[in-house]
Amino acid sequence: MLKLYGITLSGNCYKVRLLLGHLGEPFEWIEVDARAGETKSAAFLAMNPFGRTPVLEIGPGVHLAESGAILCYLAEGTKYLPADRLARARVLQWLFFEQNSHEPYVANARFIVRILNTEQECAERLEELRRSGYAALSVMESRLSRHAYLAEDRYTIADIALYAYTHVAGEGGFDLDGYPAIRAWLRRVEGQDGYVPMVDTKGTD
Amino acid sequence: MLKLYGITLSGNCYKVRLLLGHLGEPFEWIEVDARAGETKSAAFLAMNPFGRTPVLEIGPGVHLAESGAILCYLAEGTKYLPADRLARARVLQWLFFEQNSHEPYVANARFIVRILNTEQECAERLEELRRSGYAALSVMESRLSRHAYLAEDRYTIADIALYAYTHVAGEGGFDLDGYPAIRAWLRRVEGQDGYVPMVDTKGTD
Repeated sequence: MLKLYGITLSGNCYKVRLLLGHLGEPFEWIEVDARAGETKSAAFLAMNPFGRTPVLEIGPGVHLAESGAILCYLAEGTKYLPADRLARARVLQWLFFEQNSHEPYVANARFIVRILNTEQECAERLEELRRSGYAALSVMESRLSRHAYLAEDRYTIADIALYAYTHVAGEGGFDLDGYPAIRAWLRRVEGQDGYVPMVDTKGTD
Repeated sequence: MLKLYGITLSGNCYKVRLLLGHLGEPFEWIEVDARAGETKSAAFLAMNPFGRTPVLEIGPGVHLAESGAILCYLAEGTKYLPADRLARARVLQWLFFEQNSHEPYVANARFIVRILNTEQECAERLEELRRSGYAALSVMESRLSRHAYLAEDRYTIADIALYAYTHVAGEGGFDLDGYPAIRAWLRRVEGQDGYVPMVDTKGTD
């Protein structure tokens, strides 16, 4: 059975759980305590030299890191990743956008507010993060005001990747009131077969 | 013929030129002036709503953005991107690592020093960028001290993606003296068939 090493409240880890939910694929969830230094332990670094979650254990000693890479691996051959070359590239376009233009801002603002509880001390940094985060949300809003989904006209791992931190953007102080297309899209994602919420970390129990 | 909209000194744009060089694929290079606001013009945003270079024009009105997605698209079916599912995912792992743990630090330090010329004003920010940049370089060094290439035991787009900003890391004040495996790998990349240097922006002229 697949093993997934992750952190319950991490959007990057949730992406993988969400896809596994859609796929109905059983897996074992192993909670990692990053704040206790677990991701920098020798045992963890042997699985993932990048020292971060999520890590998927495919078989004994066979590990894969980086949420975007794991999504592509698991979605291969399913309806969540198109087979057509250009369509695949359009999905990847959104996965890379998420990792370099959305997650660094939307997820980090949430991390400061929700996880570290240092909103007061980090006011200036939060303002910067929110400015860039709203820019990313505007790109999504523009796409979603004309299309039901991000990369294709159907649900793919591009939507899964962007949903993870967007649906909890409010926890980082983002106000989605001005983003009606994003709000409607969040509901469409939540209506997909096999959808699992972020707080359910029980895997297939 | 493919058209590539890019910025000469951008590593993200160079990645695509380097792969096109290996592939011997002709293309037209169109220099974009981001500092004059060109990437935020209506015409440019119609090609790439993310408002950034590189953008590949595959055909009339058919555009692809995000260097990692463009590399995957162009490398499909070639020796630069494996066909095997797990091997592909390992390549993607490094492409995502580059975009979220390497480029934000190594490229931005270089941008401040080489492009903006604001090294003095940004001393504190540069120190932060270099700390994180060296962490990424250490992950590469560890891998390359045991393997000739990053994702596989042969040259792939993972190496192309990481080479782009690593080979000019010195321009951002990074010292690669303590990274002998990286330095040897840089030479191996430069020895690949069809290698083109960053300063050659002439496309196939």
